[in-house]
Amino acid sequence: MTTVAERKVIGKRATKVDALDRVTGKAVFGADFAMPGTLHGKVLRSPHPHAIIKKIDYSKALAVPGVKAVVTSADFPIAGAGTAGGELLINISDLRRLVVAEDKALFAGHPIAAVAATNPHIAEQALDLIQVDYEVLPPVENAIQGMQPQAPLLDSNRYTQSLGEKSSKPSNIATIHHLERGDVDKAFQECNVVIERRYETQMVHQGYIEPQACSALVDADGKITVWTTSQGSFNVKGQLVALLQLPQNMVKVVPLEIGGGFGGKIIVMLETLAVMLSKKSGRPVKMVMSREEVLKATGPGSPTYIKLKTGVKGDRLYAVEGEFIYDAGAFPGSPVGAGLNVALGPYKVENMRVKGYDVVTNKPRVQAYRAPGGTPAAYAMESQVDLMAEAMDMDPVEFRLRNGVQEGDLMANNQPFNRIGLKEVLERVKSHPSWNIPINGKYRGRGVASGFWTGAQLTSSAQVQVNADGTLSLMTGAVDLTGTRTTMQQICAEEFGVTPDKVHVSVGDTESVGYTDVSGGSRITYSMGTAVNRASQDAIAQMKQRAANQLKVNAEDIEFADGWFRVKGDPEKEVSFLELARTSRRGDGPIIGKGVVSKLAPAPEFAAHVVDVEVDPETGKVNVLNYTAFQDVGFAVNPTQVEGQMQGGASQGIGWALTEEYVWDKGILRNATLLDYRMPTALDLPMINTEIIEVPASDGPYGVRGVGEVPIVPPAGALANAVAKATGVRLYQLPMSPERVLKALRDKAKDKA
Amino acid sequence: MTTVAERKVIGKRATKVDALDRVTGKAVFGADFAMPGTLHGKVLRSPHPHAIIKKIDYSKALAVPGVKAVVTSADFPIAGAGTAGGELLINISDLRRLVVAEDKALFAGHPIAAVAATNPHIAEQALDLIQVDYEVLPPVENAIQGMQPQAPLLDSNRYTQSLGEKSSKPSNIATIHHLERGDVDKAFQECNVVIERRYETQMVHQGYIEPQACSALVDADGKITVWTTSQGSFNVKGQLVALLQLPQNMVKVVPLEIGGGFGGKIIVMLETLAVMLSKKSGRPVKMVMSREEVLKATGPGSPTYIKLKTGVKGDRLYAVEGEFIYDAGAFPGSPVGAGLNVALGPYKVENMRVKGYDVVTNKPRVQAYRAPGGTPAAYAMESQVDLMAEAMDMDPVEFRLRNGVQEGDLMANNQPFNRIGLKEVLERVKSHPSWNIPINGKYRGRGVASGFWTGAQLTSSAQVQVNADGTLSLMTGAVDLTGTRTTMQQICAEEFGVTPDKVHVSVGDTESVGYTDVSGGSRITYSMGTAVNRASQDAIAQMKQRAANQLKVNAEDIEFADGWFRVKGDPEKEVSFLELARTSRRGDGPIIGKGVVSKLAPAPEFAAHVVDVEVDPETGKVNVLNYTAFQDVGFAVNPTQVEGQMQGGASQGIGWALTEEYVWDKGILRNATLLDYRMPTALDLPMINTEIIEVPASDGPYGVRGVGEVPIVPPAGALANAVAKATGVRLYQLPMSPERVLKALRDKAKDKA
Repeated sequence: MTTVAERKVIGKRATKVDALDRVTGKAVFGADFAMPGTLHGKVLRSPHPHAIIKKIDYSKALAVPGVKAVVTSADFPIAGAGTAGGELLINISDLRRLVVAEDKALFAGHPIAAVAATNPHIAEQALDLIQVDYEVLPPVENAIQGMQPQAPLLDSNRYTQSLGEKSSKPSNIATIHHLERGDVDKAFQECNVVIERRYETQMVHQGYIEPQACSALVDADGKITVWTTSQGSFNVKGQLVALLQLPQNMVKVVPLEIGGGFGGKIIVMLETLAVMLSKKSGRPVKMVMSREEVLKATGPGSPTYIKLKTGVKGDRLYAVEGEFIYDAGAFPGSPVGAGLNVALGPYKVENMRVKGYDVVTNKPRVQAYRAPGGTPAAYAMESQVDLMAEAMDMDPVEFRLRNGVQEGDLMANNQPFNRIGLKEVLERVKSHPSWNIPINGKYRGRGVASGFWTGAQLTSSAQVQVNADGTLSLMTGAVDLTGTRTTMQQICAEEFGVTPDKVHVSVGDTESVGYTDVSGGSRITYSMGTAVNRASQDAIAQMKQRAANQLKVNAEDIEFADGWFRVKGDPEKEVSFLELARTSRRGDGPIIGKGVVSKLAPAPEFAAHVVDVEVDPETGKVNVLNYTAFQDVGFAVNPTQVEGQMQGGASQGIGWALTEEYVWDKGILRNATLLDYRMPTALDLPMINTEIIEVPASDGPYGVRGVGEVPIVPPAGALANAVAKATGVRLYQLPMSPERVLKALRDKAKDKA
Repeated sequence: MTTVAERKVIGKRATKVDALDRVTGKAVFGADFAMPGTLHGKVLRSPHPHAIIKKIDYSKALAVPGVKAVVTSADFPIAGAGTAGGELLINISDLRRLVVAEDKALFAGHPIAAVAATNPHIAEQALDLIQVDYEVLPPVENAIQGMQPQAPLLDSNRYTQSLGEKSSKPSNIATIHHLERGDVDKAFQECNVVIERRYETQMVHQGYIEPQACSALVDADGKITVWTTSQGSFNVKGQLVALLQLPQNMVKVVPLEIGGGFGGKIIVMLETLAVMLSKKSGRPVKMVMSREEVLKATGPGSPTYIKLKTGVKGDRLYAVEGEFIYDAGAFPGSPVGAGLNVALGPYKVENMRVKGYDVVTNKPRVQAYRAPGGTPAAYAMESQVDLMAEAMDMDPVEFRLRNGVQEGDLMANNQPFNRIGLKEVLERVKSHPSWNIPINGKYRGRGVASGFWTGAQLTSSAQVQVNADGTLSLMTGAVDLTGTRTTMQQICAEEFGVTPDKVHVSVGDTESVGYTDVSGGSRITYSMGTAVNRASQDAIAQMKQRAANQLKVNAEDIEFADGWFRVKGDPEKEVSFLELARTSRRGDGPIIGKGVVSKLAPAPEFAAHVVDVEVDPETGKVNVLNYTAFQDVGFAVNPTQVEGQMQGGASQGIGWALTEEYVWDKGILRNATLLDYRMPTALDLPMINTEIIEVPASDGPYGVRGVGEVPIVPPAGALANAVAKATGVRLYQLPMSPERVLKALRDKAKDKA
């Protein structure tokens, strides 16, 4: 391993290895893959948000020429125990009901049946011929309603889990999380400032460009192969194995190129149906979602209701009491637990009592969305922090610095932080022009917010083959969402001391490479980067042993540098990398380095964003003037991509804060197109400036931290704080859309009048 | 590893894992694979066996709507040095000229250009529009003609290599091999019996059912993926890398199911053209040969002319003098060297002087065909042996036993044999009813012949993943020609102590698994079987270490049996295989065992076949009445498949002996269909009886020997000996077709008259 000063490849800007294939249209995404004889599958979805399914008759659909199979819930085995999903876990029995409704339709868009036909048009026509008798029920439209005792029940067998106890009556509240520390009631009495507010956020979608798509083939002996665009091939395999109750070696998942995931492509939806349609028809089956299906029936981010009471004693954030209600959609598993951690993570708080509610409603079941649960939680907490700083007439950055966590401080879950860079991030903000150059003009304001994300580690596997010409073929098990192939190429090149073009990187299928968890949780560069380092070092160690045999010394006497294996202290005795590579086939056999990582310490991510806005008092529109994202990235292997992650996360956070929301009408989604569901475009955003801070992580070979998620955490808080500064009005609901801002401005004017 | 007595899976009959997929049509062979947007490639072939290519004008072809690319030799880089091919080696520069003709067409069928179009019909039509100006030259029609000083030269830069010297003049004789031992001239003077004869055999084809087929895609960044039905993915990759002068990590080869190879699917033909067409067109390109192309322009087996003079002193085969002339077709590389070894291998001969000639002619360049070069050589030698036994009035089996080699005796190449089973095979014949029950009736006769094949070892790689549910996913780099996936499944199951259904086997592409040489040379069960054993043991060793950590002992104190890892001497301390498998992902990470084999001792194969025939004196047709194949297989992992190999090899040998031959008319093949090129059908053959003898090989974990090739070695000799016994007439030419036999009978009648 090279020292920091000697690094030749990592830390340098590198072009994405997949760029050319993507821009020339050669990359094979989910919808591009096809096999001869492929059938096309389409899904019949419930028009009702809540209904009992009394009967399904698909005989007429099956009689349509070209229709080869129809599946319903009756075709699937009864689900066993366990959970699935790489980020937000879901019970297998719930997953089965999410994939295709059993006795009840639980959201408008819930799959009821699927048809495979010789072309997609026939399949769609056949859907119309499936007769479903529904008994329509009143829907649970939101979590607050769902928590009422008289609310309709989604599942009469669902009981609340709280502090290890099960409720006596069924409920739409699946779980209540508790965090408690110190004596909160006494602490509030000691505080000089106490602020209590309620916040509300809406359901939003990850907005990945590529709709879900997959193909499946069941062989004559029952072996299943699935080609899919997902965030984790092994994860897809695991879910299919659990749902279909198969031996693990009977399912192979081949990853295709992926056009964005952000947490929304972890749970199998189409895959399970495609497999069953292939099994019934004996043909390969391909399924591709429409954009409407993506918005209506995949997994958006949770809507939330957050109540926070915070107290300051002297200049210390001394007490926090909170209630976080997260809407999980049709099945439990919202990211409320992560939300609590994100809200409280950046602050030393001696006394806290926080409850989190995971509540089911008649909406699509939520999935992970970049730092799942973090954006609404930070929006609430960072708004509170500004309110407190304001009440104390203190600079908001200074308040954050004084109360910010450092190594050794406790996380909300009472685990101590290892090395972290929040202080360094905030110090950089404090001294940075984006924070210091005055902002002038009416209806203009500047806001700041911190952000925290623990980051995941999980399991990663990589292998590197040394080819006979000295080139390297690197394979990892991790789907490349964000450019991680390029990062892995850099790491491998660094370890072997070659230029990156000597390393070809590919993502293996589930039979070609070792078990690897989902690409998510900002974990790949950290965890897989360590695995690639280990795989490279393993191959080098094998080559050292061969060099030692050839030079008749011990392997520990060999050092590797600049393409040569030399005897330490006797550099005349040497054998080249290329020579060992060349003779590998017929000599001692192929050289394949293996790297596995399953245990790494957390490498927490901290960020702070500073934003300047101008609010149009006529329309309520918030214009983003300047935006700077500060982030401790540990070590930036490829600064260009790190900046891209910071910019992308900020952009998505801005959308969540200002324009994006699901619009509901009695449980029916009314804006299921990208025209009406309004994500920010390039025209809506300024250049997002980036400031990289590098405080090395405690573990792993290069000090790398994950970088992908934390940039979506601060934007809503920072924008709410900026809007408050610009207008004197604070918004307690997201998105801060023109109508909400205008209403707030008018309400304020009314109050004054 | 289990002891022989404890073996539960290997040594038992097992059903082929791929059987169901094959019989239901689900297996994806070369012609089944397709990608969206695929173009179809077709090849323009020379109508002349020998011609100078003066000019190629493909402008009209390129102008045809739907035609996307045309390639000729001019599109390929100048070839570098080196050789390629897993069995019969070929110079890279010759391979380049074989793939597509440069300045000369060297056989009728030689590729001149290739066209890719949106459908195969357009591509074929476009071929007609390519204008080629030929200067037609007289062809070299056979090796005897080619060796004449006045013969036309295929290549004026080709000189004869002999005893390390290069001839002064160019020649069609590429190489002269020499084997010399003792004092041959003196030895013959001491002999009581000396017999000298000439033998001739014709060009024959392997007759695999599936024609060559492949698809190729060149990505935007130049990365090449080839899907092909070949005997070795790494071999294809190596040839493409050499021909196209690319880094090894820029070529990925994905093996498809293969419908027979027998040595004929080792050299890239279509693949190179498909890659270049894809590169020029920017689209995937698929190419599939017709049967006519397969027969005319792939790689058949060498025609031969063999002269043998053998002498017996006492009852010892004392002296051999020989001249083996093998026709290589258009480029050097016939299996004449192997032929010498096969002929002389089974016999202790103190004095020998044998020359082998590798001669080029205007025919398709020959390729390996099951025990390459062995069948004609053994036909000649085994005929001589019977002639000698007859001259001495000795039983032919007895003569073979007395002169047969045993451990320590020298091969023709002067290397000593390790443990071999020729003696055991011949003893079994001697005591077997097929040899002892009298054969009665006019025109009926019984023949016997021995066969020998060294077998290859080369490099093999395998890996086995232990899944979390305890099932196993085994991947090898070896294309499955003969059922080796099933054999590998058995070996893996044996090592883990599970039933075979717990092991799923797949063949990896060149990036998923370690370098593995071609499937050929009877090497897979021996070499890859050892690799699978090692991979399994590697995984078990990793699990022992984990068990030891858990039980707080040393790994060497752990023993594995019956699904449990137990502390030796303290069996109460145990952890189950399943528990370790389950916790593998999040605990110590995935368990992947790796097995590599690159150095194994030879495991020579010996066989003897006994055949009863009846000759129809009216037509000359030879009917095979009974056939029994005896073979030392070392250890039969799957006896059903071993028998299948013995039967298949015998059947092909019978075809070679009795009916198969290329019929030439001035360098043009006149029987390029399977109606006219007559392979034996089920109606032509009796049940081939098999007698398995198990003399364990010296090396490898189970005593396994390769079994695939030696069964094709004895048939022609055994049949010639049987026909001689049945008719009193010996045939010195193959095939012993009705017309040749009838002529021989009539010539004999004339002689008598």
